[in-house]
Amino acid sequence: MTEKEFLALVKEIELLKSTLALSGWDIQTGMPERASEYRAEQNAFLSQLLFERMTGEKMTLAMEYFAKNRVELSELGQKVYDKVKEGYDKKRVIPAEKDEAYNREASKAFTNWIKAREQKDFGLFKDSLANLIAMQKEFITLWRKDEKTPYDVLLNQYEPGMTVEILDEVFGKVREGIMQIRQTIAEKGIEPRVDFLSRKVPKEFQISFAKELSTALGFDFSRGRLDEAVHPFMTGFNYNDARLTSRWNEEDFQMGIFGVLHEQGHGQFEQNVSPDFEYTPLKNTMSMGIHESQSLFQEIMIGSNKSFWKKQYPRFQEICEGRFDDIDFETFFAGLKRSQSSLIRIEADTLTYVLHIIIRYEMEKMMFNENVSVEKLPELWNDKYEEILGIRPQNDLEGILQDVHWTSDFGYFPSYALGYMYASQMKHAMSQTLDFDTLLKCGEYLPIKQWLDENVRVFGASVKPKDVLKNATGEDLNPKYLLEELEKLYFDVYQVG
Amino acid sequence: MTEKEFLALVKEIELLKSTLALSGWDIQTGMPERASEYRAEQNAFLSQLLFERMTGEKMTLAMEYFAKNRVELSELGQKVYDKVKEGYDKKRVIPAEKDEAYNREASKAFTNWIKAREQKDFGLFKDSLANLIAMQKEFITLWRKDEKTPYDVLLNQYEPGMTVEILDEVFGKVREGIMQIRQTIAEKGIEPRVDFLSRKVPKEFQISFAKELSTALGFDFSRGRLDEAVHPFMTGFNYNDARLTSRWNEEDFQMGIFGVLHEQGHGQFEQNVSPDFEYTPLKNTMSMGIHESQSLFQEIMIGSNKSFWKKQYPRFQEICEGRFDDIDFETFFAGLKRSQSSLIRIEADTLTYVLHIIIRYEMEKMMFNENVSVEKLPELWNDKYEEILGIRPQNDLEGILQDVHWTSDFGYFPSYALGYMYASQMKHAMSQTLDFDTLLKCGEYLPIKQWLDENVRVFGASVKPKDVLKNATGEDLNPKYLLEELEKLYFDVYQVG
Repeated sequence: MTEKEFLALVKEIELLKSTLALSGWDIQTGMPERASEYRAEQNAFLSQLLFERMTGEKMTLAMEYFAKNRVELSELGQKVYDKVKEGYDKKRVIPAEKDEAYNREASKAFTNWIKAREQKDFGLFKDSLANLIAMQKEFITLWRKDEKTPYDVLLNQYEPGMTVEILDEVFGKVREGIMQIRQTIAEKGIEPRVDFLSRKVPKEFQISFAKELSTALGFDFSRGRLDEAVHPFMTGFNYNDARLTSRWNEEDFQMGIFGVLHEQGHGQFEQNVSPDFEYTPLKNTMSMGIHESQSLFQEIMIGSNKSFWKKQYPRFQEICEGRFDDIDFETFFAGLKRSQSSLIRIEADTLTYVLHIIIRYEMEKMMFNENVSVEKLPELWNDKYEEILGIRPQNDLEGILQDVHWTSDFGYFPSYALGYMYASQMKHAMSQTLDFDTLLKCGEYLPIKQWLDENVRVFGASVKPKDVLKNATGEDLNPKYLLEELEKLYFDVYQVG
Repeated sequence: MTEKEFLALVKEIELLKSTLALSGWDIQTGMPERASEYRAEQNAFLSQLLFERMTGEKMTLAMEYFAKNRVELSELGQKVYDKVKEGYDKKRVIPAEKDEAYNREASKAFTNWIKAREQKDFGLFKDSLANLIAMQKEFITLWRKDEKTPYDVLLNQYEPGMTVEILDEVFGKVREGIMQIRQTIAEKGIEPRVDFLSRKVPKEFQISFAKELSTALGFDFSRGRLDEAVHPFMTGFNYNDARLTSRWNEEDFQMGIFGVLHEQGHGQFEQNVSPDFEYTPLKNTMSMGIHESQSLFQEIMIGSNKSFWKKQYPRFQEICEGRFDDIDFETFFAGLKRSQSSLIRIEADTLTYVLHIIIRYEMEKMMFNENVSVEKLPELWNDKYEEILGIRPQNDLEGILQDVHWTSDFGYFPSYALGYMYASQMKHAMSQTLDFDTLLKCGEYLPIKQWLDENVRVFGASVKPKDVLKNATGEDLNPKYLLEELEKLYFDVYQVG
């Protein structure tokens, strides 16, 4: 076995993964409804080819050979080996037919989720969800090493090293801090005017502005595209093909525009991983939390910054052909950042967003560590919303059916909250050498993009999240930067103190 | 080897083909420009997997085993075997690396064709084209059995049994007949009014009307979709996923609307092949000419019929919100069917279209039977247009760069002209039992769809084109029905006789 042979096998794996990613993108961007059965067969077959390559005889040979003959690998080869070994160990313990069955079930679950949403009836999705959870639980028993709880096993897959123990503590602090800010602005703040936020902005104006912003911030449309999807996402096939999706509402321009700001941050990550890692799993992210930090940096650190909008608001007004000429900048910005309890995560404001994540984290803990039955989930979901945000969903569409994640993935949600904290910490570190606000005021985004490229994105999956954070910011995860950021922003918007 | 094992292998082949088809659709409907290199690698890999299955050890075993033990196969199994054997023999003689190289070259050729179009410069596409022709010529020497000329080998692949000898004769008659009609209307006809054809019709109105028509005619959007592409096409992944594409021009509503009418005819073919043939090559068409007959039936036999527009024009007027209220029906219909020499095939009118095909047929004969060098092709193309249509392209974009076909396929063009003739002959046959004009006048399209489903589409590739034509119409290919159709239509529009 030579390094060249090993890398050729790894390349096949990556090509199959990006083929499945293309299929996944297609499913969510308008695949004909009745095509799903055939597509499930197709994806199962492709997954089987992938599985064979990831765990078959040849890979086993490579894993064993280079475990003993590591020195025969180049430095890059060794990094690839380590990353492949992780995936190998994870896959290897799952029998092929179970892996296939899971993919098939997930494909059906997505279709049922769409139907359930149309009927606002969790009942139509319930069985799929129960099947997926049961299968995941079986996998967890196979994957589990020294993780303290079953849910830790899932957390660890998205955010290496993350545990329920850590999250319970960090989320406790963040929840407490956000509650305090909410209380202060509720007591002393002046509620911003928001009526103008629902003014009709034609979809094509919104798309035009969102694309212009994305391009200015550094997303490269010659290496990406933008489509519509029920649940917006980004998928990167390789560094030259990163695909954004968004949804548009002409009576709520914020949804689409901030959605694109977010997704193009994910896209920038994909586009700026080192090309040396192409055709290897090093082209991926070191963790989902770090990936989220890149989208949230764009959406929150940049997109919620007053200087950013000072520069961009006149352009927005121009594109909107007079529709906002009577709204001055201060009013506009304060309106954008109004905070209010809401039911839908992806429409949540910057202050309450993390609370939505904490609810999902609690739900997933219950599914995996407390074996709660799926029938009870909608009620539990609604109870949590009442407890933490003070409002209760009136139906499943505005409750438990709102997110696509549980049609295939569990343990992902905490990444969003970690992304908030990572992004805040990166902004703090970046501000030691860059005059952040001035750059935004001038619309000079390139130095910010470069900082993120060089300190975070370029490494792909060749480093650990903990290390990249430490190297980039000089310290370990520290939730205080997020709380400082939120306090500064919301005390300004609500004119407190 | 059992039938079940054989069919499982065949299913894998079909799943890989539809995966490549998805990738191909994606390339032409907005894949990021810079993604083409990666995609070429991806397609080469998938093609290699396909090639292995189509020609590898297991398939060879199946081919040999069932050649001797045919009786062990069911009736369907035997049909599948025969079809697979055709493909096996075709592929088997091409070495794997040459097949791969061709796919890679074709992928690059498409990118270069796009660039060449932007610059209106054939020079940017020339080398790719030369490479493809050279590779095809090599393949032809490997494929050739008793075909009289190299080009016959290519013709035969799209239209089994078709030859240069037959086409020279049939095209001679058709060209002569069309020339006579053109001369008559030029001498005695009254030129229709056409100024209103360039009235601005917003794209969304056009899409809305085109979708409504397609649905009424029998295309099922729950098993298909409509997208934009530079060069419109239809691709069918399976009978539940047939994808149309079109391009839109707000100053030329005919382009998009007739384009969709055409493509949804292809789509109807795909959607109505017997579901029994799913996951086998029998789900495909018996020939490209027959497939084209289904699109041209919709575009010409229905879409150029006066009774059809008598019914649909009021609805078109309504969707266009008053833009055509001053144009009476006779004026509108005559304008639609005006005939005029033009440079672009897909914008050509019904009378001159086949002449565009005859030019391409002559060009392909020169490429493969006369070994003309690629440098000379643009000049030769322009000369042909001057000779046959009396007009000369001023640049390569309105000349030789207009069609996507030569980025991968040669020998396909004659199928369009065959499609015209087949469609006319089918309409003649259908009219023996159906009152065609009355059905169109009433907007009752279902009996027409059913006739085509039952007599043509349902068979997929399980029959020969010659047989399906004979069974459906009672006779062999006869070009007189096309000429009768054209004469009737154009003498009416030009008020001759």
